[in-house]
Amino acid sequence: MARIVQKFGGTSVGTIDRIHTVAGRVRAEIDRGNEVAVVVSAMSGETNRLVELCTRASPVYDAREYDTIVAAGEQVSAGLLAIVLQSMGIQARSWLGWQVPVRTEDHHGKARIREIDTRELLTRMAQREVPVIAGFQGVTDRARISTLGRGGSDTSAVAMAAALQAERCDIYTDVDGVYTTDPRIVRKARKLDRITYEEMLEMASLGAKVLQTRSVEMAMKHGVRVQVLSSFEDRPGTLVVGEDEIVEQEVVSGIAYSRDEAKITLVKVPDQPGVAARVFGPLADRGINVDMIVQNIAADHPGATDLTFTVGRSDLDRAVQVIGSLKDQLNYQHLVPDGSVVKVSVIGVGMRSQFGVAQKMFSTLAENGINIQVISTSEIKISVLIAERYTELALRALHTAYGLDASG
Amino acid sequence: MARIVQKFGGTSVGTIDRIHTVAGRVRAEIDRGNEVAVVVSAMSGETNRLVELCTRASPVYDAREYDTIVAAGEQVSAGLLAIVLQSMGIQARSWLGWQVPVRTEDHHGKARIREIDTRELLTRMAQREVPVIAGFQGVTDRARISTLGRGGSDTSAVAMAAALQAERCDIYTDVDGVYTTDPRIVRKARKLDRITYEEMLEMASLGAKVLQTRSVEMAMKHGVRVQVLSSFEDRPGTLVVGEDEIVEQEVVSGIAYSRDEAKITLVKVPDQPGVAARVFGPLADRGINVDMIVQNIAADHPGATDLTFTVGRSDLDRAVQVIGSLKDQLNYQHLVPDGSVVKVSVIGVGMRSQFGVAQKMFSTLAENGINIQVISTSEIKISVLIAERYTELALRALHTAYGLDASG
Repeated sequence: MARIVQKFGGTSVGTIDRIHTVAGRVRAEIDRGNEVAVVVSAMSGETNRLVELCTRASPVYDAREYDTIVAAGEQVSAGLLAIVLQSMGIQARSWLGWQVPVRTEDHHGKARIREIDTRELLTRMAQREVPVIAGFQGVTDRARISTLGRGGSDTSAVAMAAALQAERCDIYTDVDGVYTTDPRIVRKARKLDRITYEEMLEMASLGAKVLQTRSVEMAMKHGVRVQVLSSFEDRPGTLVVGEDEIVEQEVVSGIAYSRDEAKITLVKVPDQPGVAARVFGPLADRGINVDMIVQNIAADHPGATDLTFTVGRSDLDRAVQVIGSLKDQLNYQHLVPDGSVVKVSVIGVGMRSQFGVAQKMFSTLAENGINIQVISTSEIKISVLIAERYTELALRALHTAYGLDASG
Repeated sequence: MARIVQKFGGTSVGTIDRIHTVAGRVRAEIDRGNEVAVVVSAMSGETNRLVELCTRASPVYDAREYDTIVAAGEQVSAGLLAIVLQSMGIQARSWLGWQVPVRTEDHHGKARIREIDTRELLTRMAQREVPVIAGFQGVTDRARISTLGRGGSDTSAVAMAAALQAERCDIYTDVDGVYTTDPRIVRKARKLDRITYEEMLEMASLGAKVLQTRSVEMAMKHGVRVQVLSSFEDRPGTLVVGEDEIVEQEVVSGIAYSRDEAKITLVKVPDQPGVAARVFGPLADRGINVDMIVQNIAADHPGATDLTFTVGRSDLDRAVQVIGSLKDQLNYQHLVPDGSVVKVSVIGVGMRSQFGVAQKMFSTLAENGINIQVISTSEIKISVLIAERYTELALRALHTAYGLDASG
């Protein structure tokens, strides 16, 4: 007998019919002899509807009231799943954040979980009752409802699995696992059986939106084994685990890409101490996040440098405006914005102990005539910025080069 | 300074615009120097939507889960009104049933309020904070959400007013008060300035659906002064108060009518002990409520009696079926169903000390050629059953006869 936490996202509980399907998945787990706790999101569309009501009530709203309002979404879906489970003869009841309780910090709108009291849940699970826990929500020490931020139900599920010392946390979603790359672009993309927490974190932050980053961090911290799988198809998904659980590690596990990138180059900025601070300070003040940064000495112009950096694509216009207004202070020659770039990243814990991984990336792109504009690396990933029109070509070429193609 | 509870129904908080109107009414009360607590219903349509989700999840659902689900409606509207009040510079916060707490019996779906802890509310009201309380809901000793049954927000408001020892409980709704009779039928109907609890109770149970019966009973028990008024128009409504507050009592305060009536006559039932039990027992067993009952000795047929009674119109077919299946046992000659009747009632605490009130009703109807089929009386009302086609004629004639017509 194992103890399993199952988490179902908004699409999976989007209609009463789908809630019946979900209930079938709960029953299958019980039939395997396991103890089950369930965490649910709000029915799809519901959170957006409630957020819009808040915004229309007042553009600046009290985050405590926002939390009270949006938490109603998971309250409803938890109750509905409990009803459906009962109708199938399974003992079940809904649990709201304040009932468990899931205690959080007093930071409304994006609270962090401090502590989950599992005593009552464990007692009832031992008596074959299935707790259906409203995800995304908790309660503060002031007895106000708090929420964990968008996508927080993944975090609720992982935290619950950690607190219940569950064997596994199954995250049911509308994809059936984590792929070596986007299967819509690379037909030979393979579903991974396993992936490490570190790789999953890089994948998540690099554009592969399967799991919320915070939930992966929490799983890594507490050693919770997470499975990503489809609520619509009946087959195993991808296990997200520690490195020790992966016997034969590929050098590269996956290739991610993000189109949400834009590049700005300041041509011939005087090469003086403090120039970076004068550029990036004003951007940070306006909440514009800078990702990759490269600085080159301009060969034909000693004493000046070209400064290139990337921002989110939706921030490009604002960033150009901010930097443009500082032209006199920064004293650059001209500014070149480029909204047609993509960031492609190869990811793999194996590259820590393997040489030539970066070299293979650069040569593969070169062989395909793709110019690399910016490079950034970390211990387990290499990212390059290239022109957006090469996205598909680059992904397919790299996927083949690293031996990731599905056979047949 | 007075302490006022304001209650806003579903139509009054049905859109964000209307919630702004409601917030204006809260501000007006504060500007008069009063301490205000607000009780809200769910946005109109929301409770029906949630109830339907429950029913579709399973035709027989756990009442505890039902309560968890439908209580979400008031949770949202309370949060939204708090946000709008804050945007107007008024200190406000939402309070859910479990937060106050409003303690109820462990009877889900139609719980009764046992106790309301007002300490925190009173402290904050004294600091000029407006509590916006989710109506219709409470919490049981097992920390589950309970609800008070449909229309329970009126009861929440009156209970809150009693617990807060409020000067008055203002129930804002889509009508602007209680009328002498239905103004859609009698153009000369007048809005009453005041009405006693007893009269309001009779009005409510006789078809004038302004306030939920239970809320009036509770107001009477605790001596809470209730005002019924429009949330869309800016003028005083009708005060529901004790008899001592009504200086000059009319003999008759109002004339109510109900079309939800059907009549069944059993012709020539043997006049034996126990016949009533044999007829009404099986109806009660099937949840069919019997209202008026008359038994006459059939003049031309000694030893037999005609038994006439009324049921709700939607129960008529089932009642006929039940009685029809007992024809051999009951041994009646034949059965006459009639779904085209209406019950007209004159109501007034003044009739306790006044003779001739009933006589005036009978003679007025006779003068207009309206035959009375069944009569029933209580201390403060006289009800008659007549053919439905006389409804308008009867209401107008009685309204004039009792001197209720508006002048001009």
